[in-house]
Amino acid sequence: MANHEETFQRLCDQAKEAAMIDSILQLLEWDERTKMPSTGGAYRADQAAYLAGLTHQKQTEPKIGHWLEELANSPLTADPHSDTGAIVRLLRRDYEKKVKLPQTLVEELTRTASHAQQVWAEARQANDFAKFQPLLEKTVGLKRQEAAALGYEATPYDALLDQYEPGETAENVARVLSALRDALVPLVQAIADSSTRPEVAVLAREYPTAAQEQLGKQAAAEIGFSFEAGRLDVTDHPFCVTLGPRDIRLTTRYDERSFNDGFFSILHEAGHGIYEQGLPDEQFGTPLGEYVSTAIHESQSRMWENQVGLSQSFWQHFYPQAQQAFPTALSDVDLATFHQAINEVRPSLIRVEADEVTYNLHILIRFELEKALIEDDLQVADLPGAWNEKYKHYLGITPPNDTDGVLQDVHWSAGLFGYFPTYALGNLYAAQFFVQAQKDLGDLDASFAKGQFSPLREWLRTNIHQHGRRYTPAELVQRITNAPLSHEPLMNHLTKKYGELYNL
Amino acid sequence: MANHEETFQRLCDQAKEAAMIDSILQLLEWDERTKMPSTGGAYRADQAAYLAGLTHQKQTEPKIGHWLEELANSPLTADPHSDTGAIVRLLRRDYEKKVKLPQTLVEELTRTASHAQQVWAEARQANDFAKFQPLLEKTVGLKRQEAAALGYEATPYDALLDQYEPGETAENVARVLSALRDALVPLVQAIADSSTRPEVAVLAREYPTAAQEQLGKQAAAEIGFSFEAGRLDVTDHPFCVTLGPRDIRLTTRYDERSFNDGFFSILHEAGHGIYEQGLPDEQFGTPLGEYVSTAIHESQSRMWENQVGLSQSFWQHFYPQAQQAFPTALSDVDLATFHQAINEVRPSLIRVEADEVTYNLHILIRFELEKALIEDDLQVADLPGAWNEKYKHYLGITPPNDTDGVLQDVHWSAGLFGYFPTYALGNLYAAQFFVQAQKDLGDLDASFAKGQFSPLREWLRTNIHQHGRRYTPAELVQRITNAPLSHEPLMNHLTKKYGELYNL
Repeated sequence: MANHEETFQRLCDQAKEAAMIDSILQLLEWDERTKMPSTGGAYRADQAAYLAGLTHQKQTEPKIGHWLEELANSPLTADPHSDTGAIVRLLRRDYEKKVKLPQTLVEELTRTASHAQQVWAEARQANDFAKFQPLLEKTVGLKRQEAAALGYEATPYDALLDQYEPGETAENVARVLSALRDALVPLVQAIADSSTRPEVAVLAREYPTAAQEQLGKQAAAEIGFSFEAGRLDVTDHPFCVTLGPRDIRLTTRYDERSFNDGFFSILHEAGHGIYEQGLPDEQFGTPLGEYVSTAIHESQSRMWENQVGLSQSFWQHFYPQAQQAFPTALSDVDLATFHQAINEVRPSLIRVEADEVTYNLHILIRFELEKALIEDDLQVADLPGAWNEKYKHYLGITPPNDTDGVLQDVHWSAGLFGYFPTYALGNLYAAQFFVQAQKDLGDLDASFAKGQFSPLREWLRTNIHQHGRRYTPAELVQRITNAPLSHEPLMNHLTKKYGELYNL
Repeated sequence: MANHEETFQRLCDQAKEAAMIDSILQLLEWDERTKMPSTGGAYRADQAAYLAGLTHQKQTEPKIGHWLEELANSPLTADPHSDTGAIVRLLRRDYEKKVKLPQTLVEELTRTASHAQQVWAEARQANDFAKFQPLLEKTVGLKRQEAAALGYEATPYDALLDQYEPGETAENVARVLSALRDALVPLVQAIADSSTRPEVAVLAREYPTAAQEQLGKQAAAEIGFSFEAGRLDVTDHPFCVTLGPRDIRLTTRYDERSFNDGFFSILHEAGHGIYEQGLPDEQFGTPLGEYVSTAIHESQSRMWENQVGLSQSFWQHFYPQAQQAFPTALSDVDLATFHQAINEVRPSLIRVEADEVTYNLHILIRFELEKALIEDDLQVADLPGAWNEKYKHYLGITPPNDTDGVLQDVHWSAGLFGYFPTYALGNLYAAQFFVQAQKDLGDLDASFAKGQFSPLREWLRTNIHQHGRRYTPAELVQRITNAPLSHEPLMNHLTKKYGELYNL
């Protein structure tokens, strides 16, 4: 037993060492995307590749396999949800996945992704899908190889999805997203047919960057992001990154002619940051200090952005601060007008600009297409046509070109197959958790209207953050809401809210 | 021969790998001192220690010793100043130094420095030298052990000095600094006796930070620092750091009630940065991509700060830009008044605030005291008294307390013995190089007055930067100026300049 404890300690130390190297790699990437001078890129790529290789090496050393074997029948791992049991179980899962992938395939995937992203950017610029097609074909082939190496039961897509959503399946995703689609399409249609037209022009008035930053930081701090353990910087494509247990960084971008872009990016990234700040510090580097899954992470950002940030009650509290920050733009705009404007629903071409209602249809389209590609039911050459057909079918619009159509997202060029559904799952989890939080805590709108966000934040800490990766997404949603993931909480939220806003 | 070339390549690759890890460590430190949120410190210390250990490991692997041995009698190393000869010679020097130090001593030095710096900061705050005394005694003892391990001929101080100034000796430093002192003390006295009083109050008017930053960046760019391959940030104690061959970062601090602090810090750090940007990119990580020595580095920063930045001709060109940046503070101040004010000479207590004339006396005091400590001619307990005596003797002033006296600098607590003289040597090298540059290039003042700084910068590139560490400081000054280091060029510069400014 003493021996097992020593082995367990070694296993944890090894995981923490790998996590430390990875945290340094995150600093390299944060710096590259926020501060690095333009000529620093070439050497930075070498530095990053070096640390990525070192991290991988620390995660796949054969001694880890021996330690895991030794601990397999130890009393330490008898309860899979105890601290020691969960840590060993999850490290085993990670280790087995990593060693299943041949080093040559990992390198080929990395090289192809790097090349494909460049070609994708050029093809997008030139509105020329044919240019990107060969590399996307190569990528799909490699991802199929990856799925085969990882292993799966029903479909190779499951193996890829499982990398972001442990235990999730294409079948289950299809089930909830189809149900969502069936309810969502009529709602989108009803909104389109409504005569209500939000005054969105007020959101395109002059919003000076400095005031946007100050207001965004105020909001992030109020909902509970600690700037003592974090910061906010400017970047091209907003993200949140963890550089250590007490160093979590948000990024955003500002458009002086758009209120929504900067403000809701900050709230969104702050939601991610609050989750990271809520993970147990002392477990940093072990699975108990890590987030559950990509979709659960997204549920945290989406809840603060949508359930909270787009609510009437949030703005009852916060609108005076916004008017003070932007007296020229907002002094003649009343709360109701402002709230209706930030909640405009309009089917659009671009996923990242989509509203709360239509967003999930963008995801559904991508899920159906990438699943078909991986299952060899769709050829890459036929992808642009299939894309446009689905946009017509689900959103009633047709992209005028591939740049604003099939070429708009970086994900496929980067080899991120199985990632898109996590955006929609995140929205579903957010809605389902939020309903439960309201059951547990009472009238949250009344809290928000008084500027009280700590009840919700502490509820998230207690129910989600503090557990790290102890539970799978499916276990977590069952534990918390006593039900499996469903489309209904989100649909109820959207139907009620937009029914009122659009007088349906 | 082919085999030797392969070995040489391995040796270089190993050096470049260590340099890459070190460059990542530099990013950790840059971030810590400019951006990191306050609670990030503990984990950052772990990250930095990890990379420092990894760098040391890569620099001391026994295979390096085998490679060096194999190359010792190779034709590749026949000429010690050829590329291959210089690289092997210098890597051998570095390797032999590193392996001479027992790992336990290195660790003890690191631990003690970390502890001593904390206690020093507290002792300084509390004006309580006795609190710091035991740790300084321990540090001196460890540095003596370090010197013994490294080996020396005349005095243990030489072994420490050699770490910053390869080949330099205490005897030679004493020779030039004593000569400097003998000429400097009467000049300081003559200035003190002069009835000329610069109007320094104008430099303490309102200088808004944003305008200081913009003007400082303009000046740094004009003298030749590339902001495409660098940036400028705010910190507590200004420094310049290299994060890669094309990523060199300057830092400064701003005081809204002082023109000099921010502006000359930026020029100073830009001088360091121009040196780093002038080293050959393709040699990054080998000795031919590294700076010669601490004093030669300081000569570059001091030349741009003092010989250029404090000259009348620089301000003939640049003063209109300064007046435009600070219309309220400077519109009623003429060029002569401004130039005299920025060049005020006044014996003072604090080294980092000292002017161009008295600065070297601060250094001389520290050199004499630290040499005596290492040679056991002075006990730590007697240090405060010795310090005050020397300030009285050389500068005519007595510190009112140890905080502004012997406790003012961080260096000794950090174990930096042998470092102080490089500040004065840097000033001497700067003056001696500058005289030669004027001989080679003609009237530099006429260039500066027209805003032309590239002739001097290219002269520095050609004569100093491009060679990396190929020559020792002594070889370099002999090659460039055809004479050994001397106090005379600096004294001539100071006597002429301040004779005019103070009507002596």
